[in-house]
Amino acid sequence: MKTTAIIMAGGRGERFWPKSRASMPKQFLSLTDDGKTMIRLTAERHLSIVPWEDMFVVTNKDYIGLVREQLPEIPPENILAEPMAKNTAPCIGYAATVIRKKYGDAVMLVLASDHLIQNARLYLDTMAQAVEVALEGDNLATVGITPSYPETGYGYIHFGSDGEHAGHKGVYAVRRFVEKPDLETAKGYLASGDYLWNSGMFVWKASSILSRFERLMPQVYEDLCLIENSIGKDSHIEVLRRCFERFPSISIDYGIMEKADNIYTLPGAYGWDDVGSWLALERINPTDSHGNYLQGNVLCDGTRNSIVVGADKLIAAVDLEEMVVVDTKDAMLICRKESVQNVKKIIEHLRASGRSDLI
Amino acid sequence: MKTTAIIMAGGRGERFWPKSRASMPKQFLSLTDDGKTMIRLTAERHLSIVPWEDMFVVTNKDYIGLVREQLPEIPPENILAEPMAKNTAPCIGYAATVIRKKYGDAVMLVLASDHLIQNARLYLDTMAQAVEVALEGDNLATVGITPSYPETGYGYIHFGSDGEHAGHKGVYAVRRFVEKPDLETAKGYLASGDYLWNSGMFVWKASSILSRFERLMPQVYEDLCLIENSIGKDSHIEVLRRCFERFPSISIDYGIMEKADNIYTLPGAYGWDDVGSWLALERINPTDSHGNYLQGNVLCDGTRNSIVVGADKLIAAVDLEEMVVVDTKDAMLICRKESVQNVKKIIEHLRASGRSDLI
Repeated sequence: MKTTAIIMAGGRGERFWPKSRASMPKQFLSLTDDGKTMIRLTAERHLSIVPWEDMFVVTNKDYIGLVREQLPEIPPENILAEPMAKNTAPCIGYAATVIRKKYGDAVMLVLASDHLIQNARLYLDTMAQAVEVALEGDNLATVGITPSYPETGYGYIHFGSDGEHAGHKGVYAVRRFVEKPDLETAKGYLASGDYLWNSGMFVWKASSILSRFERLMPQVYEDLCLIENSIGKDSHIEVLRRCFERFPSISIDYGIMEKADNIYTLPGAYGWDDVGSWLALERINPTDSHGNYLQGNVLCDGTRNSIVVGADKLIAAVDLEEMVVVDTKDAMLICRKESVQNVKKIIEHLRASGRSDLI
Repeated sequence: MKTTAIIMAGGRGERFWPKSRASMPKQFLSLTDDGKTMIRLTAERHLSIVPWEDMFVVTNKDYIGLVREQLPEIPPENILAEPMAKNTAPCIGYAATVIRKKYGDAVMLVLASDHLIQNARLYLDTMAQAVEVALEGDNLATVGITPSYPETGYGYIHFGSDGEHAGHKGVYAVRRFVEKPDLETAKGYLASGDYLWNSGMFVWKASSILSRFERLMPQVYEDLCLIENSIGKDSHIEVLRRCFERFPSISIDYGIMEKADNIYTLPGAYGWDDVGSWLALERINPTDSHGNYLQGNVLCDGTRNSIVVGADKLIAAVDLEEMVVVDTKDAMLICRKESVQNVKKIIEHLRASGRSDLI
C-alpha cells in the first residue's frame, strides 16, 4: 500500500507578525538559518519515504500560489484548496476522500506544515514504525512528544503502560486525548509520566480515518462522500464550497481522536518544535555566546538573551535583555520576551484602525 | 553699545545617533514637537534683543551649508567657519576678534546652539540683566542654572554670598569655576547651596574677553590678533588655518573662566536643558498618560516610560519599560534608558568596522 503525506498548510500564524501576514503566513516563511521555508522543510524531510507525486497539501485557496511557488515538485492536482478554514477535521476528511478516490486506499502521514524536527533520522524511524502500526486493522497512530515542561498551550495524550503492540516496541495504546490543560493539571501530567504532548501529526490509512468519520461525525461523512463523488467533475468546486459551508469548525482531536478506539502513540524524542512564537528562534537556531539569536544587519553592545531579526537597515541593540525585535519593510516589532503573545493585540489594534495593509 | 549673539554650532553631537550624524549634528535636528531645529530655536529666542544682522554663528566649515539653509536671515559674512574644531576658547576668541574688527566693541551673548529654554521671557529678562553687568568695566557675566540633582556631567560655578552687584539684584560674584565633579562631590555641591550648573552661556564685551585672552592665554591672543588683521584680506583663510592649527584644543572654562577675575553669575530658573541625550525628549516634550514620548508611526501596547521616535515604518512597541527606540531611514537604535550613553560604543563599533556611512 502506498504511503502518502498530507501537509496541512491553511494556518494564518499571527504570532509571527510582522513577518507573517494574512497574505504570507508562517509556513511560507523561512525561520531557520538554512533559508528554507517551513513548508519546504516539511516536504523535503519526508522525501525518503514519500515521493513528490504522493505528497498533498491542503491549504486555503488564497495560498495556492505560494504552495506552487515553494513546492513546484508537487503535482498541481495534489494541492487541495479549502474554500474556507474549518479547522483540521474537515481538512483531513477532505484529504482522505481525495486519497481514497485516487488510490483506493493508502497510508496518510498527516503533517503540520510549520513544525520543525531537529533529528530527521530518528523522526523518520518513528514515522516508519507508525506506518507499520497504521497498516494493521484500522489503527490510528500518532506521534507523541515527551514533555519537557508543563506547557499549557498543547493538547496531551494519556498513554497506557504496555509499551509493546503486535511486536512493535515503543508503541503505546492511547487511553485518552485531552485538551490544553491549566498549569496545575499540566504539572500533574508531567509528574505522572503518563502523558505526552499531542504533536498533531497522525498516521493512518484513509479507510481507517474515514470509517471514524462515518461513525463519529456522520453528517460530515455524508458531505465528504459528496465531495469525493464530485472529484473530477465540473461541479467539484461548487460542491466543495457548499460542503465546507456546512462543516462545523472543529479539530480532528476534538471531533475524532477524543472519541475513537484503536489509537496508538509512539513517543518521539527527535527535537520537535511547533515554532509557536518568536521565542522558538533561539531554540531552533544556534545562539551566540551572550545567548542572542541575531539575524541580518544587527550590531549589539551589552545585549543578552535577545532575539533580533533585522531587515535592510542597521539595528543597534544596546544593553537589551530578554527582548524580541523583528524588523520588516513596513513594520517592526519591539517586545519583551514574556509578552510575545501580546503581538495579537497589535494585530487587533491594526484591524480596529483600518490598517489591514499591515496585517 | 551693540549687543550681538554668538551661536556656537561646531559640535558633533554623537549622543543623538542615529538621528545625528557627522554630517548632521544635533544642533541641526528638530527634537521638539514644534518641528524647528535646535539652532533655529536658539536664534529665534534672541530676536527681541539681537536683530538678525548682529547674530553670528561659529561652526565647522563642513556645516556652513546647513547654517545658511536653516538660518537664511543671518548675513553670510556673519557665519564664521572654523578650519578645525579646537573646543570653545579658540572659537570664542575668533568671534571676539570679528566683533572688534566690525564694531570696535560690542556685547557678545555667547550661546550654545543646542540647548533648550522652556521659559523664554524669564530667560531674556536674565540675559538683559547680564548685559547690564557686562557693560560695567571688564565684567564677565555668566548665567548659572540652579541644580536640581547631583549631575556629574556638567561643570559647576561656586558663587559668593552677596546677591547684589552695583545695584543689580540676583547678581552674584563668582568665586570659582569647577570642572565636572564625581558623584560625592556633586552631592556636596547640591547640599551646600553655593553651586550652580555652568550652562556654558556667557555675556561680555568683546574687549573684556580679549583682555583676558591677552593676560591668560597670550600665545593664543597673538594669533587672534593675526586673524583679526587678516579679516577682509585674501590671506584670511590661510591665516585662520595656520592659527587654528597652532591653537590648543581647550575650553573657555578651563582656559579663561577658571583663572579670570570680575566674573558674575545670574542664577537662572527658566527651564534650561542641555538636551544631552535621547532622555531629554521626555523632559522637553509632553508625554502621554503612560509616561511615553512617542513621535511618528508608533503603536503601543502596555508600553510605559519609554521614548519611541518612529520614521516611515510602523513600530509596534509591546510592554516596553524604560526603553529608547529611535528609527531612521538606514539605522535604528534600541536601548535601555539607563544605557543611552553607550550609543557612543555603537559609533566606535561602526567606525572600527568601516561603516562610516552610518556615523
